[in-house]
Amino acid sequence: MSYESDEQNLISLNRFGSFAIMLGKVDLTKTADESTFDKTLTSLQERLGILQRAFRDQNIPTIIVIEGWNAAGITMAVHEIVQALDPRGFALHAIERASEEERARPFLWRFWLRTPPQGRIALFARSWYSRAISEEMQKHTWQKSLKGPEDQINRFERQLHDNGTVILKFFLHISKEEQKLRLEERERNPLTAWLVTPSIWNVHRHYDDSFPLINDFINKTNTDYAPWTVVEATDRKYTILKIYSTIVKNLEKVVEAAKDTKSRKSRQKEPAKSKKNPVERRSKPYNEYTREECQQTLNNLQIEMLELHYLLFKRKIPLMIAYEGWDAAGKGGNITRLTRFMNPLGYYVVPISAPTSHESQYHYLRRFIKHFPPGGDIAIFDRSWYGRVLVERVEGFCSEPEWQRAYQEINEMEEDFIYSSGGGIVKFWLEISKDEQLKRFQQRANDPLKIYKITEDDWRNRDKWDHYEEAVDEMLARTSTDVAPWTVIESDEKWYARVKAIKTVIKTAQNLL
Amino acid sequence: MSYESDEQNLISLNRFGSFAIMLGKVDLTKTADESTFDKTLTSLQERLGILQRAFRDQNIPTIIVIEGWNAAGITMAVHEIVQALDPRGFALHAIERASEEERARPFLWRFWLRTPPQGRIALFARSWYSRAISEEMQKHTWQKSLKGPEDQINRFERQLHDNGTVILKFFLHISKEEQKLRLEERERNPLTAWLVTPSIWNVHRHYDDSFPLINDFINKTNTDYAPWTVVEATDRKYTILKIYSTIVKNLEKVVEAAKDTKSRKSRQKEPAKSKKNPVERRSKPYNEYTREECQQTLNNLQIEMLELHYLLFKRKIPLMIAYEGWDAAGKGGNITRLTRFMNPLGYYVVPISAPTSHESQYHYLRRFIKHFPPGGDIAIFDRSWYGRVLVERVEGFCSEPEWQRAYQEINEMEEDFIYSSGGGIVKFWLEISKDEQLKRFQQRANDPLKIYKITEDDWRNRDKWDHYEEAVDEMLARTSTDVAPWTVIESDEKWYARVKAIKTVIKTAQNLL
Repeated sequence: MSYESDEQNLISLNRFGSFAIMLGKVDLTKTADESTFDKTLTSLQERLGILQRAFRDQNIPTIIVIEGWNAAGITMAVHEIVQALDPRGFALHAIERASEEERARPFLWRFWLRTPPQGRIALFARSWYSRAISEEMQKHTWQKSLKGPEDQINRFERQLHDNGTVILKFFLHISKEEQKLRLEERERNPLTAWLVTPSIWNVHRHYDDSFPLINDFINKTNTDYAPWTVVEATDRKYTILKIYSTIVKNLEKVVEAAKDTKSRKSRQKEPAKSKKNPVERRSKPYNEYTREECQQTLNNLQIEMLELHYLLFKRKIPLMIAYEGWDAAGKGGNITRLTRFMNPLGYYVVPISAPTSHESQYHYLRRFIKHFPPGGDIAIFDRSWYGRVLVERVEGFCSEPEWQRAYQEINEMEEDFIYSSGGGIVKFWLEISKDEQLKRFQQRANDPLKIYKITEDDWRNRDKWDHYEEAVDEMLARTSTDVAPWTVIESDEKWYARVKAIKTVIKTAQNLL
Repeated sequence: MSYESDEQNLISLNRFGSFAIMLGKVDLTKTADESTFDKTLTSLQERLGILQRAFRDQNIPTIIVIEGWNAAGITMAVHEIVQALDPRGFALHAIERASEEERARPFLWRFWLRTPPQGRIALFARSWYSRAISEEMQKHTWQKSLKGPEDQINRFERQLHDNGTVILKFFLHISKEEQKLRLEERERNPLTAWLVTPSIWNVHRHYDDSFPLINDFINKTNTDYAPWTVVEATDRKYTILKIYSTIVKNLEKVVEAAKDTKSRKSRQKEPAKSKKNPVERRSKPYNEYTREECQQTLNNLQIEMLELHYLLFKRKIPLMIAYEGWDAAGKGGNITRLTRFMNPLGYYVVPISAPTSHESQYHYLRRFIKHFPPGGDIAIFDRSWYGRVLVERVEGFCSEPEWQRAYQEINEMEEDFIYSSGGGIVKFWLEISKDEQLKRFQQRANDPLKIYKITEDDWRNRDKWDHYEEAVDEMLARTSTDVAPWTVIESDEKWYARVKAIKTVIKTAQNLL
């Protein structure tokens, strides 16, 4: 039996199967003795409808995860929950095998993209848990990772929670005996018999082996911010009422808590203490190379970069390069020189400006994660996720607890990217002196070909130079990690800055090969 | 030789290959005799940079397509164009084989999603042309289509042009002899030798056979709104200058024309004459069924729908259902009854409201095309693309030439969807009388559980009832086509409306099987 079929069937949710299961059910029409059940259910559905509107009005995003054993009734549970929800306010995500595009990126990438915007519900029929368990059993994706999937998952859920997302997770539990009965029942029904393959039976026989793994996984990921509810899913009516009442109870608690703004604030963590800045900012280059040496060497470095780019592509290693720096520090020109001979089909530049109204409805990291490069590609960010602790901090676009929290969130995001993709991250801070910036602003203002580059914003930012310096120093201190260190590019001399940047990228790329 | 390899190699642009080609080039560094070429190129690049900013300021989207024979130099051409462009303003699309997600949808779907927003450039390294030619040669996708790919492509380009997109297309032409020389050169270079497979040679030997097909294709798609420039691509420098000068010349013309607003207006077509309305609007049901019959039959119809849904899924046939109708006509409740037993993993509801600022930057149809269902799925639109000729017309959100043009554009879009996917479209107009609407508004206003459903907008729309009636009648008259007819649902009686809707969907689905 191949891994392929293992993965398919251990945690199976394929849409063909789910159709067959629904067709195979005979209890779609009501019987008389169901009237109490119906009344309770209707009441819960109404309350859930009201809650959905309250969450929409309060801009709270919600994630509901339905997991469980094969044949435990995930499709039926999802079908029932959907009945109570306004289609304008939720999205259903049936998690099957990852697409080619998704497989080329870190494990959680596709789930980040499926997180709900403010005021909406994302309902997951299977989730990152099934993916992680399948992959854990296959034992090939996680081998080289220092962190197990549960740590990555806990970080993911904690980050979403910290930014206001409510997360509820259900595991539909049936015993091995019950699973056997259900598989046999499916085998007897011609509509569903084909679902019960020998491989499904094989997985069933390993129920006792996988039990401790799943149990351990649930315990490790059962957190305050994203609790599990294990549902004894033997009886269909009990299962439905249990899920509904748990959802309603928890969401009502959130609505209550939200009314009391004080309690909301107290959820914010204390900001961590700032470390001393270990990264020196200089705007003048050391006298390593002369101007002539730099100009002579640039062309060769560009060709070397082209060749390295090919090797990264060939070995499917992704690379991210983040450019940050003062206005007029020369980011654009530096990027142009770096990419001069690079194959345009293998890299892309992601220019970052203020988030759109659509982007603002999600966790602030999502719009960057969306542009994570697939294996072999180079993504160059012209400004980056560090905007959170620079412009957003200085201009007050986010609260202090938010930007304080961002240092850790960013470090985790970068670490997760590197560990799960095997790729690298280069981070440049382009430093120029305040005098040099003034000179360049004036040059731009006087050159009709460059005047478009200078705006009122640039002058305004310049007035806040000291505030930005404080933010930059703290950023360099708190996010220069072993796996993703900052490189300060002394940029008063552009010829030097360009050579240093490309050399740094080359060195990082060589270390990845 | 399989079709698979045929397609890969007839029109090959794979990124591995493009890296090898770039690595294989020796002329990356400048030589002294290139100074005139360099000067001309620099001047053109500067002008293109200025044009890119002018287009951004004027919100004009641009599409540049680079096509050509194998080994004609597409990668090099793209690489050169990229040098002049500000990365903030363009996206490069390297068109390779369609992904699984893309193959499940109509041919042009993925190109629609890659059209540029206002003020930006989309640069295509290969495009819908290579895809169409490959598929034309395979002769299996287009067989059942009544329209050839060139008609679909011309419609696509015309619709984009009519909404303001500038389209320039280049075909890099080399002779069979030149191609042979280049392939041999690549064979001699160890970096690129692996690219020249036996299959590539086989395609080369069929150069004379494919020439008339490609020639014919170019002629049929060489239009005023999207002209081809065939470039004799034997000499690299000539090729680059020719492409640059053609782009600059054409874009400068557009900028000039845009200054003269009069000439812009004259580009608008005369609105077509309105036809008489052949679709009767009624709000009261005929006496086909009694209320009791409807209530008894609904449950069985819902189960029938579940089974049909499964068959559509199994045969990978997509279905779109568009709900339009007066406010409070009962769209939401009707959709809930239709989907009561449908498998939530196989359908989705797309609620349509006003376009976001992001969506407004594209052709108005793009946000609907994005939600086209893959084979086997049912997409239910709660309001639809008909907003263009309803709310946008009545409220003046688009100009009269724009909504007049929309009838044809919508008919073409629906026809293309049906022909290229083999799927179906059901379009419901939910008709209620003005009195019935008033009654329902008042009921909503008095019910604390429903009051959220009624807003100021609803009352304002009601004041414009007569204007909407005119728009509805014209819409029904001009967009009820043989392949996608409108069905009026008499909705004063909800019990009848629900049964009629589900019966209509069942009938359509049965006809598709």
